[in-house]
Parts: sequence; structure tokens; C-alpha cells
Amino acid sequence: MKRASLIAVGNELLSGLTIDTNSAFLGGQLQGLGLEVVSRYTVPDELTAIERALTLASQDADVVLLTGGLGPTDDDLSRQGMAQFLGVELKLKEHLLDTIKGRFEARGLDMPARNRVQACLPEGTEALANECGTAPGVMARRGDAYFFLMPGVPSEMKRMYRSAVEPVLRPWVGSQSIEHRRLKCFGLGESALVEKLGDRMQRGRNPLINCTVTLGVITLHIIGQGRSAAAARERVEDAESQVRALLGDWIYGTGEQTLAEVVAGELQRLGQTLTVAESCTGGLLGKEVTDVPGASTFFNRGWITYSNQAKTEELGVSPDVIDRCGAVSAEVAEAMATAGRRKSKSDYSIAITGVAGPEGGTDSKPVGLVFIAVDSAAGCQVKRCCFAGDRRSIRQRASQTALHALWQKLHFDLPQ
Amino acid sequence: MKRASLIAVGNELLSGLTIDTNSAFLGGQLQGLGLEVVSRYTVPDELTAIERALTLASQDADVVLLTGGLGPTDDDLSRQGMAQFLGVELKLKEHLLDTIKGRFEARGLDMPARNRVQACLPEGTEALANECGTAPGVMARRGDAYFFLMPGVPSEMKRMYRSAVEPVLRPWVGSQSIEHRRLKCFGLGESALVEKLGDRMQRGRNPLINCTVTLGVITLHIIGQGRSAAAARERVEDAESQVRALLGDWIYGTGEQTLAEVVAGELQRLGQTLTVAESCTGGLLGKEVTDVPGASTFFNRGWITYSNQAKTEELGVSPDVIDRCGAVSAEVAEAMATAGRRKSKSDYSIAITGVAGPEGGTDSKPVGLVFIAVDSAAGCQVKRCCFAGDRRSIRQRASQTALHALWQKLHFDLPQ
Repeated sequence: MKRASLIAVGNELLSGLTIDTNSAFLGGQLQGLGLEVVSRYTVPDELTAIERALTLASQDADVVLLTGGLGPTDDDLSRQGMAQFLGVELKLKEHLLDTIKGRFEARGLDMPARNRVQACLPEGTEALANECGTAPGVMARRGDAYFFLMPGVPSEMKRMYRSAVEPVLRPWVGSQSIEHRRLKCFGLGESALVEKLGDRMQRGRNPLINCTVTLGVITLHIIGQGRSAAAARERVEDAESQVRALLGDWIYGTGEQTLAEVVAGELQRLGQTLTVAESCTGGLLGKEVTDVPGASTFFNRGWITYSNQAKTEELGVSPDVIDRCGAVSAEVAEAMATAGRRKSKSDYSIAITGVAGPEGGTDSKPVGLVFIAVDSAAGCQVKRCCFAGDRRSIRQRASQTALHALWQKLHFDLPQ
Repeated sequence: MKRASLIAVGNELLSGLTIDTNSAFLGGQLQGLGLEVVSRYTVPDELTAIERALTLASQDADVVLLTGGLGPTDDDLSRQGMAQFLGVELKLKEHLLDTIKGRFEARGLDMPARNRVQACLPEGTEALANECGTAPGVMARRGDAYFFLMPGVPSEMKRMYRSAVEPVLRPWVGSQSIEHRRLKCFGLGESALVEKLGDRMQRGRNPLINCTVTLGVITLHIIGQGRSAAAARERVEDAESQVRALLGDWIYGTGEQTLAEVVAGELQRLGQTLTVAESCTGGLLGKEVTDVPGASTFFNRGWITYSNQAKTEELGVSPDVIDRCGAVSAEVAEAMATAGRRKSKSDYSIAITGVAGPEGGTDSKPVGLVFIAVDSAAGCQVKRCCFAGDRRSIRQRASQTALHALWQKLHFDLPQ
């Protein structure tokens, strides 16, 4: 199995200012390609430290991926560190300079003089295009080993990895056959899931099954190896059907799919439309829905009715109902959902009202109490939820749970 | 300045399943004590890798903090790695065994045999009490250097650091006092900021000034050291006033403040209210505003008018204007903002309309073009912006820029 080593450059990573999320992204990607990540070095913005890390990493591995230190300031020393490690000079590349100038010009700006250094490459290396920033990456070879230098900004790094690094690594990793599938689950806790899967999650098995959790969404990774792609795939498919049999509807999607993407895909497939009416989530659900490119095909509008008066004026929720049941109630959630659907002429509607805290909780309506209504021509269902955690996490879970409730309703209303 | 090095042990940290948050916590804590964190090694659950990391780290630093690999399974090798590094044997400690057995008994359980290994220490080292788990930590000395081994579970590690590690390190680091301030900036690029600050950002200065960037928000860190707290504070305050003189209104806040929090604070202080009317951000701006606890004091509602029809039906934007100028135009942004303010009876109103991509761009209205209108009784200002990046980053920048425009208008309309 070919080996990879990671280098993360930046004082902010050592002083605790920034949590290094790049390395986890790269670790997952490389593992998916069939590479074993054997070490990671985190070093300050210092030339000797960067050069030393390159030396150590090149002893560990066949491919070294470095992130950070490609900016335009004096602190950005990865280009120089790579040049020293290779024993070559930095050279200005006119075509890179033109590209960088062009990026500034497109925004009506002159390129600051200091950005010039970003057009320099160690001799004998190649530039990697940066589609969302000024700093090009660097690809170098020494002996049989590959070296890739990428920006530290996560969005730029991910884009560059996918467009310029992975296409080089995938064929190079070659006959190693690894199959990596992700199943996305929602609606049950991590320990409940682990219990259901039992010893299938033990280390050292092939395929290996493990899980990561973010805001209630559990991602199950099934990673199988085999002498051929077909053998690896067969192992993974076997495991996937066992897992699906055990988890059933807890699994909502695959790969990197978010709940919003899955719901959007279903709505588009069915030619149905959606609206949202939000109180405590204040726009978060609309944001999640419109995070999906092309959302305008199924979403035309939404309301943020934060105050009682707004619920009445914008959505016609009866002040009597609000008085009698409270703004945080099944009745108000239902009234918001049905009015939103009617006003926007959408097929489906989600409404959320709750107590996100930290203030505003009472004995009967504690912080974390949220009502979620999903309405369609087939009727309105309201779900009462009690979420733990802080304001951010209550709002996130409310919006995820609402999307999951819609997903379930889409399946129930319109059997496949 | 005394130097620290960190070691994080665990396959899951390299394969991307787990993001290492422990290291950022420890980095921040150690910097706060006046230690410089100079390196970090992330290694798999392998004896040779752990021993090698201890060797490298001990060459870098006066104190080495290792996390992970103290569990009861065969994969937990940090104790053994430390013993090999020190050239000693592991020895069972009866009093540790009693403590571990006691933890199980308290939960009505027998201690599994494999937990016995957690009662073993390298000869000549000391145990660190674990108040929330079974694995004791380890403290060792070699020469003048300190070594601390702690569990990888973040809650256990943090508790152990605070109760058993910091009390040893604080007096050892000695009289060094550290003062750390953050200034939050928006509206100028990183290189422009660095240019303005010039050599104040050079490494090795006291106070040290460095910066981190997230979605257009630049955090400037000013970190000063002195023999007394007063001396450190004076250094930082001096630097802060120099920086403020150079950056002026580019600085919008301090500490961990977000733009939404600063705007919310101003609105609350002035007794003014806000509404939002969003097209391409689809709820994101409302979400940012209502992320702030107590947002209901200044925010009563908002609109997500994604389609042209929604802009007309909900906010009365004239179809003629949309036809003539396009939905992405200064005219439509202004019409959305003024209607939103009128309908919600708010003092201030923000509207955003733009092309978030990836589809929908044209030559005259490319992806990234966004109009932001801020309306008040004093009039409406519209800003035309061209944002680079992907859909997510265009939407984030649009919402941050809108909050910043409101912040500027609050200062302009109502001079302090």
C-alpha cells in the first residue's frame, strides 16, 4: 500500500487560533484512494521548520501533501521551503503573474506588489491552478515521490485537491483496489447505531466500517480492499446490504449528500415545490434549502416570522390561537405551514417554531422545545421535539429534523 | 521563552475520521501560559511511530504533551512508547489498579481484564489522576524536560490538563506574563492589511501581531509578553492604539465578536430595529442576525423572495422594474429594501439580490455579482459587489458585506 504524509504550515495551527480541518479532509480523501496516511507534521511559518518537515515526511511516504504558507506575505514560506528542500531557486513565471493580475483586474483592482511572489515557483516544478484564490499550488517530484503544495484556506485547498491533485494520484495509486462508500444516517444516536451494527464495526476487518457524527448526521464509512476493483466492490456491497437491512430508513443518503440535497433531489424528480416559514431558526432552514445549486426550480419564497405580529400579518396566524396556545405550539406551527403553502402556491411547506434559548424558556416551554410542521395536499403533520445543546445546536438540529420530516413525508405521500 | 511540542496519537486522526480539536485547545492554553508551541506530530497507533515522535519532540522543546493511546486495547501504545523512549519497563501500580477497579464498581460493574494495563506506568514516572475516565495520565522527566501523556477523549484531556498539568507548568514557566487581544476587521483584503501594518507583523517581535482570515473577516491577534501582567498589558495597549490609528474603521470589533453581534449590539443600544429581504442568500442573512441571542429585541421578520414573482407579491417590487433592470440590479435591491422596511415598520432594512452560481451567470451579470441595499429614514444606499469563489463563499461574503454596510450606515446616520 502506498504511503502519504501530510504537512500543515501555520503559526495559527500551533497557537490554537485555528483548528486544522484540512488534514482530516485530506486524510479521508487519501484513504479513499487507497493510500495509507502514516504521519502528519504541523510546523510554524519558518523556513527551517518547513524544510525539515519535508525531509521527515519524504522519509515516511511516497507522496507528501503540504497545506498553507502560499499567501503573499513575508510569513508565507512554503514555496521557499520547497525550493530549499529540492536544492533549487525560485523563478518568476510570467503566465502565473498574468493569471494573478487578471484575478485582481476582474474585480476592478490593481494587483498589490506583494502578490508577485505568488507567481514564483521552485525550478523544475509545476503550478496547480487555483480556481478560487490568487495562490497557485505547486507539484514537484523527487525520485519516485510526489509533493503537492496547496493553500491553507479550506475552500481553495479542497477545490485544488479535487481538480489538480486527485487526478494525478488516482492513476498513480494504481492497482490498489479500495472501495469507500458513505451512508448518511439521521434520526438515531451514535451509540444506538453502534449497538445495532455490533461487531461489524470492529477494527481490522475488511471491509472496515466506522462512523463520524456532525450535528445529528451520522456518516457510516464502509471501506473495503481487494485484489481487483470488483473484489473490493463486492465486499463493500455485501456489507452495505447488511447495514441497510439493519438500519433501514435511518439511512437517508450516500456519499457527501446533505439532507437538503436529498430533499431537493426528490422534489426536482417529482416536480414538486417547497416553501418555508421560520420562527426560531430565523432563516437557517431557507439557507440550507438554497445552499443547493438550482434551488429556484423548487423554491420560490419563504418567511421569517420572528415576532407574533409578523406571524399574524404575514401568514394570517390568528392572534387568538397565539394567545391560547402560545407562539411555540403545534397549532401555530400548523397555521404557519398551511398559510405558507397557500400563499406561495407550493406543494410542500415546512414551518418551525420553538425556543432556541438561551433566554425565553419556561417550565412548560423549556429551551430546546421546537414544533415542526410539514404540510401538503395530503395533510399536515406536526412533530414535537426537545433538543439538547446550545442555541446554535438547537437551531441546527431543528432545521435538520425538519428536512428529515419532509423527506419522510415525500416518501409517505408519494410511494415510489 | 520556553518551548512546547505536541504529539497526537491515533489512526483516526490520520485517516480523516476525527478532526483533532485537542491540539488547538492545548496550543491556546500553552500560549496563554507563555509557552511557544513549536511543533506538532500526529502519529498512528504504532510503537515505533510514538517513540520516534517523542524523540523528535524532545529535540524541539522543553515540554512535550502527548494525547491519545492510553485506552485499554491492544492499539493503545502510548505508555509502552514512553517506556521505550525512556529506556525503562512498564510496572503495574497496585494503587492505580484499585482506583480503576473502584470506578467500575461504582457503576455496578466488574473491571474487564484488559483495563489492567491502564494501571501500568513506565518506571520512574508519576500518574496523573483522571477524574472522568479510567485511564490515568503519565508525567515524566528526562533531563530538564517535562513529558505529559493524557487521554485522547477531549473532555477527559481538558479536565486532566486543568487539574494536573497546568498546576505543574504554570510555576515552572515562571514569571512570564502574557496578554492576548483580538481585533476583528472587515472590508479590506489580507494583503492590503499586511501592507498597512508593515513590519509590525514581523515574527519574533514583542508584542507579536498576526492574523487569521475566515470568510473575509480578518482577526488580528496582538500577543504581548512582560515580566508583569501590567507590563504585558501596556505593550499590547501600545500596539493596539498604533494598529487602530492605521486601520481606523476597518476594525469593527474585538475578541470573538461577529459582525452580526456588533450590529445587534448597536441596534439594541440605539433602540433601533432591522428587517431583511433576501434573494440569493436565501435566509442566510436572517440566520446570521438571529444567531445572536435576544435578536427578537430588534428583529421581527424577514422575507426570502427567491423568485421574481415572490419579489412582486410579497414586497411589491414592480414587474416593470424587474423586466427593465433584471432581478439582479441596484433598482430591485433598493425596491426590496424600502418595501421590507415599510411592511415590517423597522428602522433599518437590508436587501440582497445577486447571482450565487454556479449556474445563472451572464456576461453582464456574472456569477458573484451581488447588489446590497441598506435603507433607513435617512435614505437608501446600494452597493454593487463582485465576489470571487464558489456558491457558498459568495453567499457568505454577501451576507457579511451586508452586515458591514449596515454597521457603517449606523455610524453615519447616527454619529456617536
